[in-house]
Amino acid sequence: MPATRLFTNARLMLPGARAPEPGAILVRDGRIAAVGAGLHAEAEAHDCCGRLVTPGLIDCHTHLVFGGDRTAEFEMRLEGASYAEIAKAGGGIAATMRASRGLDVDGLVSAALPRLDALLAEGVTTVEIKSGYGLSVEAELDMLRAARRLATLRPVRVVTTWLAAHAMPPDFEGTKADYIRDVAIAGLAQAQAEGLVDAVDGFCEGIAFSADELEPLFVEARALGLPVKLHAEQLTRSGGTLLAARHGALSVDHLEYANAEDVAAMARAACVAVILPGAFYMLHEAQKPPIAECRTAGVPMAVATDCNPGSSPIASLLTAMNMAAVLFGLTVAECLDGVTVNAARALGLQDHVGRIVPGLRADLAIWDAERPAELVGRIGPNPLHTRVFDGEVFDA
Amino acid sequence: MPATRLFTNARLMLPGARAPEPGAILVRDGRIAAVGAGLHAEAEAHDCCGRLVTPGLIDCHTHLVFGGDRTAEFEMRLEGASYAEIAKAGGGIAATMRASRGLDVDGLVSAALPRLDALLAEGVTTVEIKSGYGLSVEAELDMLRAARRLATLRPVRVVTTWLAAHAMPPDFEGTKADYIRDVAIAGLAQAQAEGLVDAVDGFCEGIAFSADELEPLFVEARALGLPVKLHAEQLTRSGGTLLAARHGALSVDHLEYANAEDVAAMARAACVAVILPGAFYMLHEAQKPPIAECRTAGVPMAVATDCNPGSSPIASLLTAMNMAAVLFGLTVAECLDGVTVNAARALGLQDHVGRIVPGLRADLAIWDAERPAELVGRIGPNPLHTRVFDGEVFDA
Ligand SMILES: [Zn+2]
Ligand SMILES: [Zn+2]
Repeated sequence: MPATRLFTNARLMLPGARAPEPGAILVRDGRIAAVGAGLHAEAEAHDCCGRLVTPGLIDCHTHLVFGGDRTAEFEMRLEGASYAEIAKAGGGIAATMRASRGLDVDGLVSAALPRLDALLAEGVTTVEIKSGYGLSVEAELDMLRAARRLATLRPVRVVTTWLAAHAMPPDFEGTKADYIRDVAIAGLAQAQAEGLVDAVDGFCEGIAFSADELEPLFVEARALGLPVKLHAEQLTRSGGTLLAARHGALSVDHLEYANAEDVAAMARAACVAVILPGAFYMLHEAQKPPIAECRTAGVPMAVATDCNPGSSPIASLLTAMNMAAVLFGLTVAECLDGVTVNAARALGLQDHVGRIVPGLRADLAIWDAERPAELVGRIGPNPLHTRVFDGEVFDA
Repeated sequence: MPATRLFTNARLMLPGARAPEPGAILVRDGRIAAVGAGLHAEAEAHDCCGRLVTPGLIDCHTHLVFGGDRTAEFEMRLEGASYAEIAKAGGGIAATMRASRGLDVDGLVSAALPRLDALLAEGVTTVEIKSGYGLSVEAELDMLRAARRLATLRPVRVVTTWLAAHAMPPDFEGTKADYIRDVAIAGLAQAQAEGLVDAVDGFCEGIAFSADELEPLFVEARALGLPVKLHAEQLTRSGGTLLAARHGALSVDHLEYANAEDVAAMARAACVAVILPGAFYMLHEAQKPPIAECRTAGVPMAVATDCNPGSSPIASLLTAMNMAAVLFGLTVAECLDGVTVNAARALGLQDHVGRIVPGLRADLAIWDAERPAELVGRIGPNPLHTRVFDGEVFDA
């Protein structure tokens, strides 16, 4: 395993550039050691043959670990069943909760692996994975144990997020405040003690938790030194963005119903807006997130799959980029930044991954393409040629 | 190469059934010899291990053979350029015409292979391929020569369609009627003589050809004994459906602006309605095809990728099925019928492929899935386990 590699003859997407530039990347001990035109070094040579080279892609919002399957609900909805009827039939998040609780950590890992492999096949080198289908302390811990295990089974960086505040489990006896205290907060300390958690998230929505109900969780997260983020303003304006901004959140995610006050708060707090077009598409939403307002206010935008069994069963970050462009009008440059530099920032990893600059981890995607537009403007065939993770080379 | 194979322990999607049934398939000399529960035969055994088995998928409307790439236009549009500006900059079909004319048959084949392979990887066993980017007799013939060549390079059934009447080439001196006579009709006889053509198509739209302009082409096609089909009512109501129905067309494709009279005409003429959600999605259309009216009138619906470099750069039939469900509300059963039995009918192949019944070609797709909803309700990972083409087994 050579510690030094030189990737030559590349078309490099460098930070801030609109178009690729010819150049080379020197990698040493898993990090980018140098980037430039006339690099020479004693190193294992990798000729990129003029291929496009981007940072490895980062899927900064997924629910990749879960049990069961909800495509039967998808079928029922197409045949006219309402969400209420599906919920009555035991569907929705509760169905995934039951299926996930029915699996041990090994089972959760097995269920998630094909989805993880699908992401990796498209050049993903960092993936965020949330809990949120266990909805009891032990079952939530198992989800993050599975997420950590995935990082040992595949060459990928996994960032874990504690999302016990995803939904009220139907079997919980008590108020939402009780659930936040006894499960979301109590379990968080344990997750932290076990080294299972990198950030804390919640679902702020009428059907889930209010900003007031989530506030104690965010206070506790910060006391533990953990960053926060939030699902907010997806189906209605819930005030979650203002809560998140007040707590210095890394990101606010979804944002379809965010208004000017929310965007201003995100700008002041330097939050990333995580755009999730898959759920918008699957749920037939009409209200789009405030893209123009984010641009004007300088709020960085990330794009993610939101891969989950119900509202976004999409294990393809390239498809999410295409949807962000087609459905929300993000430019190609915004889509690429959205799955690299801004996605890194949404995970607090901007000093480690997401850009091709010396000092960062050598996570790269080498594409059978000349320009980023080819990654965004098509659905299939998969243009990935080679994935580089921590300086190691994995052919597609 | 054994001539007889027994696929056991399958969950079979049989014609007309809503759910899979346990059973086996006996294949002899490339055909389905028997289907049932208690089959025994001296044969090479293939244990399907309880997997879902559907007919091999049929993509009945593609423009798979073309040169060049139009993702730069996609990028320009996202940055605010209008279609007129892009056309002025040499974009649109004319750009693909120039790039396609710049390739010989080998070059066209090389360009198309990754797209074909992407379709095959998702269980496609029959693909229709249109000409339409050559727009001169010789360049159109080359496109169909490339299509025929593809069928010799991969285990797949290729159905060719003469679509010289796709657009007026910018360099043609003469009227649209001249072009139809001198290129579309003159070339068709030659294509027929060379055995290159299975059906004749046109683009009936304000920006292309009127129903009156296309009529002589359809008259000629029928004189040659070739079936017709038509791109119609995509962007406006052009009257193409009535023309196509009058000529007993196999299918009318797109149909967003088709009205009740059009649907009635299709029903009388036993035309298939080919639904193309990819172009609807990429072009941000709002007007949906008359799905409910087709159901009521008993017009069979097919679903296809319309894979092309401009309005539907989508080489994934599973994604097209998902879009047909999500965007147009087709049920799971309609989506599956749309890429099997009804797609076969749109190609005039209903007695050869598209159903699991004795006598038909043994084209099958074996899936890591229990129900068809799993094929339609997700985007990635690819659930194909094994593709069977003409009785031969190809592991995914
Ligand atoms: Zn989510
Ligand atoms: Zn077409």
